[in-house]
Amino acid sequence: MDIYEEALEFHRKNTGKIDVISKVGVENEHALALAYSPGVAQPCREIARDPELLNTYTARGNMIAVVSDGSAVLGLGNIGARASLPVMEGKCVLFREFGGVSAFPLCIESQDNDIIVETVKLLEPSFSGINLEDIAAPRCFDIENRLKKETGMLIFHDDQHGTAIVTLAGLFNALKIYKKDIKEIRVVMNGAGAAGTSIINLLNYVGVSDIVVCDSKGIIHSGRPDLNVSKQELAKITNTGNMKGSLSDAVAGADVFIGVSIANVLTPEMIKKMKPEPVIFALANPEPEISPALAREAGVRIMATGRSDYPNQVNNVLAFPGVFRGALDAGADEINMEMKLAAAGALAGILTGNMDYDYIIPKPFDPRVLPTVAVAVAKAAIETGHAPSGTDLDYIKKKAEGISRKK
Amino acid sequence: MDIYEEALEFHRKNTGKIDVISKVGVENEHALALAYSPGVAQPCREIARDPELLNTYTARGNMIAVVSDGSAVLGLGNIGARASLPVMEGKCVLFREFGGVSAFPLCIESQDNDIIVETVKLLEPSFSGINLEDIAAPRCFDIENRLKKETGMLIFHDDQHGTAIVTLAGLFNALKIYKKDIKEIRVVMNGAGAAGTSIINLLNYVGVSDIVVCDSKGIIHSGRPDLNVSKQELAKITNTGNMKGSLSDAVAGADVFIGVSIANVLTPEMIKKMKPEPVIFALANPEPEISPALAREAGVRIMATGRSDYPNQVNNVLAFPGVFRGALDAGADEINMEMKLAAAGALAGILTGNMDYDYIIPKPFDPRVLPTVAVAVAKAAIETGHAPSGTDLDYIKKKAEGISRKK
Repeated sequence: MDIYEEALEFHRKNTGKIDVISKVGVENEHALALAYSPGVAQPCREIARDPELLNTYTARGNMIAVVSDGSAVLGLGNIGARASLPVMEGKCVLFREFGGVSAFPLCIESQDNDIIVETVKLLEPSFSGINLEDIAAPRCFDIENRLKKETGMLIFHDDQHGTAIVTLAGLFNALKIYKKDIKEIRVVMNGAGAAGTSIINLLNYVGVSDIVVCDSKGIIHSGRPDLNVSKQELAKITNTGNMKGSLSDAVAGADVFIGVSIANVLTPEMIKKMKPEPVIFALANPEPEISPALAREAGVRIMATGRSDYPNQVNNVLAFPGVFRGALDAGADEINMEMKLAAAGALAGILTGNMDYDYIIPKPFDPRVLPTVAVAVAKAAIETGHAPSGTDLDYIKKKAEGISRKK
Repeated sequence: MDIYEEALEFHRKNTGKIDVISKVGVENEHALALAYSPGVAQPCREIARDPELLNTYTARGNMIAVVSDGSAVLGLGNIGARASLPVMEGKCVLFREFGGVSAFPLCIESQDNDIIVETVKLLEPSFSGINLEDIAAPRCFDIENRLKKETGMLIFHDDQHGTAIVTLAGLFNALKIYKKDIKEIRVVMNGAGAAGTSIINLLNYVGVSDIVVCDSKGIIHSGRPDLNVSKQELAKITNTGNMKGSLSDAVAGADVFIGVSIANVLTPEMIKKMKPEPVIFALANPEPEISPALAREAGVRIMATGRSDYPNQVNNVLAFPGVFRGALDAGADEINMEMKLAAAGALAGILTGNMDYDYIIPKPFDPRVLPTVAVAVAKAAIETGHAPSGTDLDYIKKKAEGISRKK
C-alpha cells in the first residue's frame, strides 16, 4: 500500500483528524449549573462589563482559526473550500500537537476577497488569531493586509511567512558555514508567489540589498508591462541593477538560489555560473528545482529542499506552532517583521556549534524548537511594544517545554 | 461562595470549557506524512472528485456550529456576541457530553440578518449542522428559515424547538394522567417569542385547534394593529374564536397554560377560572409565571417549570443532543416537524407506566434519553424521506447508548 492509499484508509478509519471536546465534566446538576445555566451568566456579565476579560473566562485566548478558500491547496491547485478541509484539519492537528495551540478549520465557500475578509472579521468574538492557508497569490496579500488592519486578531499567512522563516533560518546557518556576510550576498529568487514574496521581504528587512527575482517569464524588472500589483512592488525593492533576461542570466555571480517554483528549472550549467560555495534552496514540491544528486555533481555542498527524505528540509512546522505559541502567550497584538525575524534567528541558533552541510535546519521533532521559537517571538513582541512588558518569558519557556515533552 | 462566584472561578481556572484536539498522533515522520503532506492530498483529490465524500474523510459529519449574535442571551438580554461566548461554549459542552456531537461556538459580530445568514452559509464546507442560539425573536425565525432553504446543513434553533419538544413531551404525559384527548384541549400560551412560536406550531401540527396566545399587550387577534410579521402569522393559526382581552380573559375555560414570558403574571384567581385538572407550564426563568406553592394552593397538581429545583423541569438538554445525534447518524438532510414530534413522543414514552404528577418529564441525567430520542428522530427522518432508507437504527441506538454510558 503506497502512502496515498494508506492516507485514504487513515482518514476514513478516523473520520477526520480533529475533535471539539469538553474540558469540564457535567456529571451532575451542580456541574451543569456551573458550566451552563445559571452559573454561566456571571462570566457573561463580567465580559459585558469589561471586554478585556473575554480570554479570561473562555477558551478564546488559545483558539485560532485555520482559514482557507481552497484556491491553492498543496500542489493540487484550486480544488475549492470543501476539498481543502482534510488539509485544514491536518494543519489544526499540527498546531495542537507541535504548539499546544487550539485551532479550528474554517473553509470559506468564496474566493472573493471582500467576502473572505468580512466573514473572518465577523468571527473575531470566537478567535484570537487567524492562520491563513492555501489562498492563492496575489489575493492572499490583500486578505492578510486587510485583516491585519481591520481586526485585533493575530494574522499570519503560513504559506508566506512560515516558509520564509524556516528558509531564512537555513540561510543564516549556511552563511555561517561559508563565513559570508548576509549584507554582501547576491540572492536569486525563482518564484514570486506567496512564499517568494515573504522571503524577499524578510531578506530585504535584514539588509540583503542585492536580490533578483524571476518568475515564469524571466527576471522581474520595473520595465515589464505584465506585472501584477504585488510583482510591481517586488520590482521596486529588488533588481537595483535593472537586469533583464532569463533565470540563466540572473544566476550568474549569485551566492544563493532560492526556488519556490517548479521542478527541474535549475540546471547544473546555471549553478556553475554562480559564485563559489553556492547555496541552493530548491523548495518546489514534490520535485525540487534541481535534484540533490545533480546539484552535488555541479559542486553544491549546501542544499535545502521541501522534502523529508533529503537533508535540510524546509518544513513550516518548525515555525508556525512556535510563532503562535509565543504571540498568544505574550498577549501580542500582531505578528510583525521583528517577530518573524526573531523566529528565524532562534531556529538557526538551535544548531550553533553543531551544524554541517547537511544540517543547517533543525528537524521537525527536535524538542528544542517550540520553546526556542516561542520565547524569541514573545521577546520580540515585547521589544517592539506589541505585548505587555510584564510578560513572563520564563513561564512561556517552561510551558512550551511541557508541550514539546508531551508530544 | 454562591453559584455565580463559583462559576466565575470555575471558568477562570479552566480558561473556558472547550478545546479542539487532534484525534491522531504525529509522533514520527510517517505519521506526519499520513496526517499532512504528502498523504493528505489523496482525501482532497477524492473529495474534489466526489463532494459526497466530504464527511467520509473529515470530522465534518459529526461537526456542528453553535451560532449566536448575542442578542437574547439567557435572561441577560442583548449583551452582544463577545459576552455570549461563555454560553455558547457551554452549549458545545452539552452537545459533546450529552450527545457525542462535536460543536464549535461561532459568535458573529453582527445583528443584521442578511450578514448572519451569509456568514453561516459561507461556512458550510466546515459544518454539517447549525444550532442557532440566543438570537432574538422575531429575527431568529427569518434566519432559521433562510438557512433551511439556502443550505444543505441541519438547521435547528434550540430556543424555539428544544423548548417546544420538551414541553410537548411533558404535555403528552400530563394529558395521559388526566386522560384528556390532545385534540380536545384548549391551550393558553403566554409569550409569543422564539419558544412560544415553536410550541404553537408543534401543537398545531398535532391537531390542537383551540389555542389562544397572549403577549404583553393581551390576547393576539388578527384585528390588532401592533403585530409584527411572526405574530400576524400566529393570529392566523390561533384564536379561531377571535377572542379579545387580557390573559385573565384568555385563561377562562382553558385546560393548559403555557408561559414562556415573565415572573408572576399568572395568579391563583386566573387558575381558578381554568377547567378542572389544569396543567401549568410556567417556564419563565429564573422566576416562573407562578410559584409552584401558589399554584398548588389554587388546586394545580401537574406543573412544570424551567428550574431544576422544582419537579418537572423543562430542560432543553433532553432534546437537542438526541435530535442532532439522530439526524446526523441517519444522514438526514433536514430537521423537520415530524422529527421534532418524534423526539417529543419518544421523550414522553420513556416514562410510560412510571409517571406521576411530579414526574411527567425525564431527568436530564437519565441514560435512556439520548438513545430513545436519537432513534426516534432518525426513524422519522427515514419515514419522511429525509434520510437514506438503508440507515441502521440498531447501530444508532447502540452508539447512543455508548455515549450515554460514557457520560
